Amino acid sequence: MAFSVIFHIDEPSKWDLLLRNVRNLIKAADPKVSEIEVLANSEAVGFYASPNGDGELMKELALAGVRFVACSNALGGMEITRERLPRFVEVVPVGVIELIEKQNQGFAYIKP
Amino acid sequence: MAFSVIFHIDEPSKWDLLLRNVRNLIKAADPKVSEIEVLANSEAVGFYASPNGDGELMKELALAGVRFVACSNALGGMEITRERLPRFVEVVPVGVIELIEKQNQGFAYIKP
Amino acid sequence: MAFSVIFHIDEPSKWDLLLRNVRNLIKAADPKVSEIEVLANSEAVGFYASPNGDGELMKELALAGVRFVACSNALGGMEITRERLPRFVEVVPVGVIELIEKQNQGFAYIKP
Repeated sequence: MAFSVIFHIDEPSKWDLLLRNVRNLIKAADPKVSEIEVLANSEAVGFYASPNGDGELMKELALAGVRFVACSNALGGMEITRERLPRFVEVVPVGVIELIEKQNQGFAYIKP
Repeated sequence: MAFSVIFHIDEPSKWDLLLRNVRNLIKAADPKVSEIEVLANSEAVGFYASPNGDGELMKELALAGVRFVACSNALGGMEITRERLPRFVEVVPVGVIELIEKQNQGFAYIKP
Repeated sequence: MAFSVIFHIDEPSKWDLLLRNVRNLIKAADPKVSEIEVLANSEAVGFYASPNGDGELMKELALAGVRFVACSNALGGMEITRERLPRFVEVVPVGVIELIEKQNQGFAYIKP
């Protein structure tokens, strides 16, 4: 099955839940035709710069085609530079605009 | 008025708030033409197996046409079997897919 | 850029985060053609009746065109009368219906 969905996370404590959601989806989704994105803003971007942010599960999901995205404003607010993020993480200027534009393109929105 | 909406819950503590939201909606919605669904995943599915999950308010809302749905993955994770759920609760294989498909069908998404 | 988005808040503790989100969006959005709404229900409506609810940031955002809306049911539940709200706050009968109708009109939904 093919899905277009953007997961939104802004609380660091929700990463476990979110990644379980994504993993469950991946099992049923055809990665070649699906668009699965995780957009982190606010304090949730800190996870990307932590050891787990570059851990096995994250690499596995990124390889499967999941896009991990960080809000530049949020990174700035936490003084996290681009170099501290895993290579597979993309940065967008304003996280909420990414959330709006993807919904405009027909993506479903899920906030775990 | 007719509405198509899917409420998402994954935190057990949010059930009171969610059911108040649904009750307020029901008062204004025409149940014959509305589609109102509550999708529980993660630990929120535990409520369905609790005494309140089969209580008066839940029965009243189910009778009014509200669909209560549980994620099978989440039930498995909490070792809750189908028999422990009220009859009016439906089970879907992957909760996040239900959230995506309903939005694709034009349902609004609300996360209390 | 022009955006149509409804921000949903029901937890009082999320106002700081939500207002940061809105401020970041405002910097990039053209207010003349954008529709940016904040819908508060449940206990989050209490903020409108607090000193910060009529503070500088709120006034600035309202002047920039952000619509601040409160659920009448929620106000009633907290015994907050219309007179205690800032003039720029609008009241709708049922908050969840506002969330549904705006999404039906093509607004993106964001829950900080």
